[in-house]
Amino acid sequence: MADPEAVAKAFTDHYYNTFDTARANLASLYQEQSMLTFEGQKFQGMQAILSKLTSLSFQQCKHHVVSLDAQPSVSGGILIFVTGQLLPEGESNPLKFSQTFHLAPVGGSFVITNDLFRLNLV
Amino acid sequence: MADPEAVAKAFTDHYYNTFDTARANLASLYQEQSMLTFEGQKFQGMQAILSKLTSLSFQQCKHHVVSLDAQPSVSGGILIFVTGQLLPEGESNPLKFSQTFHLAPVGGSFVITNDLFRLNLV
Repeated sequence: MADPEAVAKAFTDHYYNTFDTARANLASLYQEQSMLTFEGQKFQGMQAILSKLTSLSFQQCKHHVVSLDAQPSVSGGILIFVTGQLLPEGESNPLKFSQTFHLAPVGGSFVITNDLFRLNLV
Repeated sequence: MADPEAVAKAFTDHYYNTFDTARANLASLYQEQSMLTFEGQKFQGMQAILSKLTSLSFQQCKHHVVSLDAQPSVSGGILIFVTGQLLPEGESNPLKFSQTFHLAPVGGSFVITNDLFRLNLV
C-alpha cells in the first residue's frame, strides 16, 4: 500500500501545476467513470469533466494549497482533502476553496474516481 | 443503491444535530476501522475519535451547513462533502469549516469509514 500522504502530496503538486499551466492535460487523470461536482454542478466522464474545467470564466489561475490531508479508503484507494486559495488571472484577492479527491489505483499509478470542489465564499 | 444526495442529507442532518446536542452519541456512527483527521491530527477507531470529539475546547456549538455534495464511491459507499459554519458557544462570529465523510453501507444503514475536518481560517 502506497503511503497516502506521499501520494497526496505528489498528486496535488501534479494536479494543480497542470491545472495552472496546461489545463487540458488533466484529461489523463480522469476516466469514463470519474465524477466531478463543481460548485454543485455534476459531470461524469473524462470528456464532460474536461469540457467543464477548460471552459471556466478564467483562462489562467494559480492554486495555493493551505492544508492537505489524506487517508486510505476501504476500496484500496486514497482520499485527499485540500483547502487552499485560488487566484484567477486579473484578480487581486484569492478565493478560498475546498476540494476532495478519491483516487483509485490503476497499474502503478492513480486515477480520479471522485472530485468535489467548492469555493468557500460565505 | 441508495440515492447519494438523500443519504447525504439525512446523514448530515443526523450527524450535526447529534454533534450539537449529544456529542457522545456520535459513537454509533464510527467503528474500529474508522479514521478521523481533525485539523491535521489523526485518530483511528471509535474510542479515539470520540475521545477527541468530546474533548474539544468548546462544549456547546452549532453547525450550519452551507453546501452539501454527494457522490457514490467505487466501494459501494457514499462520499459526502460539506462546507459550513461552526459557531462555538460564547463566540459571536461563526468559523467556516469543510468536512468530508466516506460512508460504508452496513446492514440497512451506514457507518463512517473516513472523516476529514478542517477550519478554513486563511
